[in-house]
Amino acid sequence: MGPPSFHPQMADLPGTVPDFTQPPFAGAPDARWEPLPADGVLPEGFFSTSNLPTYIRVDGRWIAPTRPRMDCVVVQRGGVLETIEPRRLAAGELVAMGEAEDGSDGIVVYARGFLGGGHGANEFRFMSTEVSRERPVNYEELAARVGEEKRRGGYLIWVVGPALVHSRARADFEWFIRQGYVQAVLAGNAVAVHDIEAAIFGTTLGMSNTGQPTEGGHGLHMRAINRVRAAGSIQAAVESGLIRTGIMHALVANRVPFVLAGSIRDDGPLPGVYSDTLAAQDAMREHTVKATGAIFVATALHAIAVGNMLPAFYLCDGVPVPLMTICVDQTEFVVTKLKDRGTHQAYGVVTNAQDFMHVLRFYLERWEQERA
Amino acid sequence: MGPPSFHPQMADLPGTVPDFTQPPFAGAPDARWEPLPADGVLPEGFFSTSNLPTYIRVDGRWIAPTRPRMDCVVVQRGGVLETIEPRRLAAGELVAMGEAEDGSDGIVVYARGFLGGGHGANEFRFMSTEVSRERPVNYEELAARVGEEKRRGGYLIWVVGPALVHSRARADFEWFIRQGYVQAVLAGNAVAVHDIEAAIFGTTLGMSNTGQPTEGGHGLHMRAINRVRAAGSIQAAVESGLIRTGIMHALVANRVPFVLAGSIRDDGPLPGVYSDTLAAQDAMREHTVKATGAIFVATALHAIAVGNMLPAFYLCDGVPVPLMTICVDQTEFVVTKLKDRGTHQAYGVVTNAQDFMHVLRFYLERWEQERA
Amino acid sequence: MGPPSFHPQMADLPGTVPDFTQPPFAGAPDARWEPLPADGVLPEGFFSTSNLPTYIRVDGRWIAPTRPRMDCVVVQRGGVLETIEPRRLAAGELVAMGEAEDGSDGIVVYARGFLGGGHGANEFRFMSTEVSRERPVNYEELAARVGEEKRRGGYLIWVVGPALVHSRARADFEWFIRQGYVQAVLAGNAVAVHDIEAAIFGTTLGMSNTGQPTEGGHGLHMRAINRVRAAGSIQAAVESGLIRTGIMHALVANRVPFVLAGSIRDDGPLPGVYSDTLAAQDAMREHTVKATGAIFVATALHAIAVGNMLPAFYLCDGVPVPLMTICVDQTEFVVTKLKDRGTHQAYGVVTNAQDFMHVLRFYLERWEQERA
Amino acid sequence: MGPPSFHPQMADLPGTVPDFTQPPFAGAPDARWEPLPADGVLPEGFFSTSNLPTYIRVDGRWIAPTRPRMDCVVVQRGGVLETIEPRRLAAGELVAMGEAEDGSDGIVVYARGFLGGGHGANEFRFMSTEVSRERPVNYEELAARVGEEKRRGGYLIWVVGPALVHSRARADFEWFIRQGYVQAVLAGNAVAVHDIEAAIFGTTLGMSNTGQPTEGGHGLHMRAINRVRAAGSIQAAVESGLIRTGIMHALVANRVPFVLAGSIRDDGPLPGVYSDTLAAQDAMREHTVKATGAIFVATALHAIAVGNMLPAFYLCDGVPVPLMTICVDQTEFVVTKLKDRGTHQAYGVVTNAQDFMHVLRFYLERWEQERA
Repeated sequence: MGPPSFHPQMADLPGTVPDFTQPPFAGAPDARWEPLPADGVLPEGFFSTSNLPTYIRVDGRWIAPTRPRMDCVVVQRGGVLETIEPRRLAAGELVAMGEAEDGSDGIVVYARGFLGGGHGANEFRFMSTEVSRERPVNYEELAARVGEEKRRGGYLIWVVGPALVHSRARADFEWFIRQGYVQAVLAGNAVAVHDIEAAIFGTTLGMSNTGQPTEGGHGLHMRAINRVRAAGSIQAAVESGLIRTGIMHALVANRVPFVLAGSIRDDGPLPGVYSDTLAAQDAMREHTVKATGAIFVATALHAIAVGNMLPAFYLCDGVPVPLMTICVDQTEFVVTKLKDRGTHQAYGVVTNAQDFMHVLRFYLERWEQERA
Repeated sequence: MGPPSFHPQMADLPGTVPDFTQPPFAGAPDARWEPLPADGVLPEGFFSTSNLPTYIRVDGRWIAPTRPRMDCVVVQRGGVLETIEPRRLAAGELVAMGEAEDGSDGIVVYARGFLGGGHGANEFRFMSTEVSRERPVNYEELAARVGEEKRRGGYLIWVVGPALVHSRARADFEWFIRQGYVQAVLAGNAVAVHDIEAAIFGTTLGMSNTGQPTEGGHGLHMRAINRVRAAGSIQAAVESGLIRTGIMHALVANRVPFVLAGSIRDDGPLPGVYSDTLAAQDAMREHTVKATGAIFVATALHAIAVGNMLPAFYLCDGVPVPLMTICVDQTEFVVTKLKDRGTHQAYGVVTNAQDFMHVLRFYLERWEQERA
Repeated sequence: MGPPSFHPQMADLPGTVPDFTQPPFAGAPDARWEPLPADGVLPEGFFSTSNLPTYIRVDGRWIAPTRPRMDCVVVQRGGVLETIEPRRLAAGELVAMGEAEDGSDGIVVYARGFLGGGHGANEFRFMSTEVSRERPVNYEELAARVGEEKRRGGYLIWVVGPALVHSRARADFEWFIRQGYVQAVLAGNAVAVHDIEAAIFGTTLGMSNTGQPTEGGHGLHMRAINRVRAAGSIQAAVESGLIRTGIMHALVANRVPFVLAGSIRDDGPLPGVYSDTLAAQDAMREHTVKATGAIFVATALHAIAVGNMLPAFYLCDGVPVPLMTICVDQTEFVVTKLKDRGTHQAYGVVTNAQDFMHVLRFYLERWEQERA
Repeated sequence: MGPPSFHPQMADLPGTVPDFTQPPFAGAPDARWEPLPADGVLPEGFFSTSNLPTYIRVDGRWIAPTRPRMDCVVVQRGGVLETIEPRRLAAGELVAMGEAEDGSDGIVVYARGFLGGGHGANEFRFMSTEVSRERPVNYEELAARVGEEKRRGGYLIWVVGPALVHSRARADFEWFIRQGYVQAVLAGNAVAVHDIEAAIFGTTLGMSNTGQPTEGGHGLHMRAINRVRAAGSIQAAVESGLIRTGIMHALVANRVPFVLAGSIRDDGPLPGVYSDTLAAQDAMREHTVKATGAIFVATALHAIAVGNMLPAFYLCDGVPVPLMTICVDQTEFVVTKLKDRGTHQAYGVVTNAQDFMHVLRFYLERWEQERA
């Protein structure tokens, strides 16, 4: 059975395996391959990937490259086709060639059912915009989708920004982690810094959890970072009892993997943060290739970074099915931007991060009770 | 005992009665009065009111005019001083004169404690902005404040926009009405139209409550309006069973007064809507003069209209205390605009209307249980 | 020759006259008509209009009703079919019946070429959102479109909000008026109040034109209103020399008609403002039925009100061609909302009102020089 | 002579040298110093810096540390006091201790005149918000300020986001660079990628400069990156003629230094991008310590990153004067966030990046003509 139909556009989209006996597959030639002229430099005319199901013809057979993502190339390594970042390739490696996506170069991008926009009907109507604060959010179905991910052993990645910690969503996110709804967290230094400041001093950026500034508060995040640096690592700080609450504590205590990616905005940074952005991308991608669902909350930088590397689908018994991608933000802009960067499958929830976490938790608790 | 301290700026603001023996009161002259030269035309140099506690010296005594609001004048009628819109005055009526607010013209605007901004301290700190999506909302205290209004017989007015009906907050708002947390609703034609379309057809602007468009849906709001026009009034439509659910049903069933003010955006309009904006203002003001609290949700037009006529305070045993004014909107802009139009006391909650109603209801239910 | 192709979606849209010998026209029955049971009350099953070209079959002939707009009905008066608001109809008048728009009820809504969304192609790509601050504005082509409207005697209506007066766009808007680029202005009381406050006192809401507050400034708009009330009318105030600059001065001096529609937000109001919203709608519509183009700047209320009554097309030699509808706002939301209320043809320019006016004027001046 | 008064808050702020004979200086003790217990680990109780003028008492003399910025510590190296990031310090180095900023620990943060908010007056008024789309921008004075920076040999740093390249502001920014108004550019990989895609293919993210998508456009930025990687560096690509127009071309041709800081969002990256965020910070800071003015356009990540390291002042003949910091963004939020992260001196211009560049250029051209 396929996933339930939370996403309006997903409703009529059972995953489909293409019929290779029909166009655009039938009659297509094998794909061409050319070597890199130098390390990290591609041959002109390379095939640039998207996040949609893609098939490449090799010796008359259609093969879907592993580890799909956009803005990469497909390389032959051993008998396997892999999607990979150009910077990671060496001179002489063979990449698929061609700009056509319709099979004429032996490559098919199989967009059917993955680009939404199905409402091309010539009917006048209201409320046709996809992303809007005025569109109601079906929390019941969203909770059911998230619950199902847990029940069937899915891999749900959460990509979160610091607003989740500034606000009181921190306690709610802890709950999601402890209840098994989080398989990986991708975030930045600031999320961990604010969370640990809250654990040690009870403030975030010197603001109390009721939104009041505190005297001398502007240095507290620096003092929190310093204590973790003294402890040696976030894990050590949790084990020593320095950090007794919060998101980082829950992640360590429940052995949920996390990647803290560095940015130029960072203070510190905390030990364990990937200050090198390429190393961070590599670490993040080990989670996106496993993802069966993704929830982005209150982050533009990380949402777009993960959107860049997240396929629009995952394989369910070999069949590509849409990968649930929820993007929660205060304004329509971040969702729109995410879509404009190619993550067309993103479903936008336009609300406050704190309230989203609170309401989703409430519906998930009810979903759990109903199934118990 | 004064109200609890939900509002950060209210925390240290017990209402105060001014000491008339001290400046700026001591030594001030009586106020001057001049007659209107024509109906609705003021004498040059009239005193223009604000929404702050104001005292006028008459025969050596300091008197606070009744029915305070901004952008009006103070008129002597009988022995009483009343704050009133210029358009409602006739030639010959006497209005207070002067532009000074410091007593030198016999008029004092007593701003102490009502303009916030107390954090003029020369301390560097983060998060000093007052209105921000990043500032946590203390729903517990907000619920307690709303609960206290009900317990002590306050007069809480709700000013709401159609997003409350588009989204599923409709059912939550019904709950607030039935539980006695709503003493008056000020809204527009669209709120009632969407609500009644939902009651009759299950859609709003042709969109289902899960956000899906329906075939032929674009005319449903016109059909809903037409049925109410055929019934004669909203009340008749409720009593006849045409309207069995929703906000308007709850208001009629619970005898909570409402004002539906017309705008040029209106279809119909529904019977009972004040198509004349001045008549609408007059009807609305009969509620703002009674208000002890106000909650604005997802409306710019109505929030600013009510903000114009809402005092920044109400009298509690003769003492002016801050009037709780909550402004809920998806972006900071509406709150900022409201403040920029003089409603400085507004406390901004930057979130989605649907989620706000849901979370506030959840906390109020808990508050009720704890007190039971 | 049709209009130039400013709007991306308009580019390939020469106006078309439908071929009545083909479906959905061929084989359709005559439309049905039923009388109103009471004044302003429609028969159940009435046909509710949209803003798209519509044809109704009467005695075997297809007739396009006059004065098209959405959310109305079509009435037979004499031999003419007219689109009209239900509230304006009397018992017994005959309205077209049916919900189908495909000819099966004798009514065809001819959407082809008017709903955009042509890019249903199954191609993965970036930047597919229609309304975004990241999408460049082709001011050259926009200026050419506006210039052509003037050259060929078009009827360009401007719908503007007070941000146009707060900011220094006031002088630029004067220029557009004096140069003949404005055939009608639809606005509210506030636009005129701020403009006249600026003319008399040099401030708007007490803020100087460099954005500085002034002492005692909060009453200046009330004093400005009062002086115009004393003068009797805006026109009289211009003629007496009270108002010597600004938008209202330019409109009166150049005999450009304007409608000032009242709202519940209004102070005053100024003489000449339609305080009755239905009377205001009627006055506004006399301009929208003539419009060949519309520019909305920095107003949600008036943009949506005018959008409700503006056809998506006008007749050019009997052929329906898209009506250029430009919506300028600081955020994507207003444009999105306008589209969600059915004004699908709106082209969004996401920028500051002041800067829009300044840049458009600059390009128009250049366009004029090039043609001189 | 001090700088002119573009910034409302700067108007009455001649730089001031504190009077060390008065409190909070008089009677203060020498500051305390303690060594780092380990590399990059501070002693508990360290003094955490802000971006305001700061004085530290050493041997009875008040010394202002060099290279001021927030969220750092002050270290004694040789006889010099330097402000420095904790991560760059080694075990045993001595840092200033204490949390007090009032002299009681031998450290004074001299906020007078640098935190704005001077309008604490108890006066009711409208439009008191500092950052708003409704507040007019004084482009004339802004142009004069920017022009003066060039005339007197200031160091103006520009911090820009990709919206500047998506839109047609690209040509305008080139003009600023060529005319000498840009002493350094701090940006990310995307700015350079879009700019170079435009130079080679005439598109940005596959969108033409009139906002139209192009066939196969989604891979063009990858092809552009690849060609620069093949060329070896951006400079080599300019010199070889691969890049003949645009921002990067102008920077290389005019020998204006730039820092391209990496982020996890990056494709490629281009050669020369600092993929390590700490190395990027170090490179950026070499420009912020020289800055006499800063303009941020359409970037949240880079604006906040630079805001973190930018002092609120620079020394003009030894006197700290406010450092002009302009933040241009489409919404108030980025400016508010920047202020909430401590960059209180930021002056917000709420508009579209394209239009800002266009209008500022127009006023600067006029300013130049008037002085010629």
